[in-house]
Amino acid sequence: MKKIVVGIDIGGTNTVFGLVDENGQILLKENIHTEHFPIPEDLVAVACEHIKRAFASFSKTHELVGMGIGAPNGNFFNGTIEFAPNLKWEGIIPLAKLFEERLNIKTLLTNDANAAAIGEMMFGGAKGMKDFIFITLGTGLGSGIVANGEMIYGHDSFAGEIGHVIMFPDGRQCGCGRKGCLETYCSATGIKRTYSDLLMSNHEKVNLKDKVADAKYIYEKALEGEKSAIEAFNYTGDILGLALANSVAYTSPEAIFLFGGLAQAGDFIFKPTKESMERNLLNIYKNKIKLLPSQLKENDAAILGAASLIWKEIK
Amino acid sequence: MKKIVVGIDIGGTNTVFGLVDENGQILLKENIHTEHFPIPEDLVAVACEHIKRAFASFSKTHELVGMGIGAPNGNFFNGTIEFAPNLKWEGIIPLAKLFEERLNIKTLLTNDANAAAIGEMMFGGAKGMKDFIFITLGTGLGSGIVANGEMIYGHDSFAGEIGHVIMFPDGRQCGCGRKGCLETYCSATGIKRTYSDLLMSNHEKVNLKDKVADAKYIYEKALEGEKSAIEAFNYTGDILGLALANSVAYTSPEAIFLFGGLAQAGDFIFKPTKESMERNLLNIYKNKIKLLPSQLKENDAAILGAASLIWKEIK
Repeated sequence: MKKIVVGIDIGGTNTVFGLVDENGQILLKENIHTEHFPIPEDLVAVACEHIKRAFASFSKTHELVGMGIGAPNGNFFNGTIEFAPNLKWEGIIPLAKLFEERLNIKTLLTNDANAAAIGEMMFGGAKGMKDFIFITLGTGLGSGIVANGEMIYGHDSFAGEIGHVIMFPDGRQCGCGRKGCLETYCSATGIKRTYSDLLMSNHEKVNLKDKVADAKYIYEKALEGEKSAIEAFNYTGDILGLALANSVAYTSPEAIFLFGGLAQAGDFIFKPTKESMERNLLNIYKNKIKLLPSQLKENDAAILGAASLIWKEIK
Repeated sequence: MKKIVVGIDIGGTNTVFGLVDENGQILLKENIHTEHFPIPEDLVAVACEHIKRAFASFSKTHELVGMGIGAPNGNFFNGTIEFAPNLKWEGIIPLAKLFEERLNIKTLLTNDANAAAIGEMMFGGAKGMKDFIFITLGTGLGSGIVANGEMIYGHDSFAGEIGHVIMFPDGRQCGCGRKGCLETYCSATGIKRTYSDLLMSNHEKVNLKDKVADAKYIYEKALEGEKSAIEAFNYTGDILGLALANSVAYTSPEAIFLFGGLAQAGDFIFKPTKESMERNLLNIYKNKIKLLPSQLKENDAAILGAASLIWKEIK
């Protein structure tokens, strides 16, 4: 019998899950609407029905050996989701236990960025690396830090919040209530704000559509050669590079991986980030740290990352 | 036979070593002048003679099981000192190998701050902790980061340079060639500069002696109630607290230990540091992270830390 693992990612809107084999192939993928389930037990019940049905067609050749869960504010040590602002579920939800009780398989849970980092280590560009940093540039900036071959969870499982490092004490207002956090600059939300500011200060013709542009729109404008769009990427990369240089002083990683929408802008984001990182690195680290795009597919990363929690334990 | 370990600390001026038992007791301590030995092999030869002589009186009851070395720019993976600016030895020195060849015992080497951090874990306040940060506030700011019960060395053994995190991109000139590094503010050197600036801006009567004051002098002035001295500690603590809050976002430690001259100023430095740290911490970390004085004695820490490299392997 071949081994197979369920990877499930709990998002504010959608919950996606898939069956993942030992090579990181997703054999099957499904989707349910998180929002339809105001009570977590109900989502667990429905998800387990789907998982059982999905697994049925593989049950003659495969053995279901575990389940990994990626979730916002996930606590790895306790298998809980704790006070997640983007979910309707309040307080502390023992999600791993709820799934474990129904499926009777080993179940591990962590936050989405950590899960994706482990996915990168098991099936992506960080294979064989013992020290790396994984950065997701989405609505916010998430991160997972691996050192000595192990995810750094910290004493409370909430380590790796590089998006909330304060870069400028009187900087932009952050959703966390403080000011100047890295993610207010370096994220899809951050670059939109930068772009909007630049359009105005560059006195370029703008319409309302420009002001609500997303990161992909800014990338397209940059491709067209629009000054404000290119400047927005340079400004974002400049700050991200400084933050990464500072991060290197903590864990001296072999590589830093960038994942998410912004990271798909290629040289527009990688070039200024790399330049700023090298300029701001302490001498002993210069020209040693690889800055790489994640090798995980955008659409598969969440499931693959979640499943990797179990594959890492097995392998 | 009881086990015993040599701990040796290579400093720019002095090399100190001691015999350390499994309880962290230093049974014997000696000192030789590093500067008298322009060639490292000569220092190793003399140190080994001293060590053998020192051990002789314990050889009936004890077995010498290893040697730990704390050294500036120490590379744990290779057992080398690499381009240490404060030593006369140039290039890469395979110091662990040189000692091992003469003493025929397991020899490990790391930088002084990492060694002290492991000392804190084995014999000090971090006993039983798996996640903590150790900060030395000396001429510069050194640090050792422990996560998952292991020292973070990074891919090249040079992780843990929190003193060279850039706090203010156009800040004070640092000895490393960059600007705004944490240690230009939060170290004995940093607070002297702050104090000197404050004396001038506060228009207090100063003489030349004041301007070359050391951290101890500033502490004494603070005890006397001198405004500039108290402000200097507050300013230092304010920046240190922000840096520690940012550090927590990386590894979410159970505790942060402060060691070194500045840390001995008690509440003058701990109070503003703690206040600033709590103010700048992301919500999920607030009121969870202990800020503690190191439990290592100032004079023993270097030897104890070095010896701990071996004790950690044995225990």
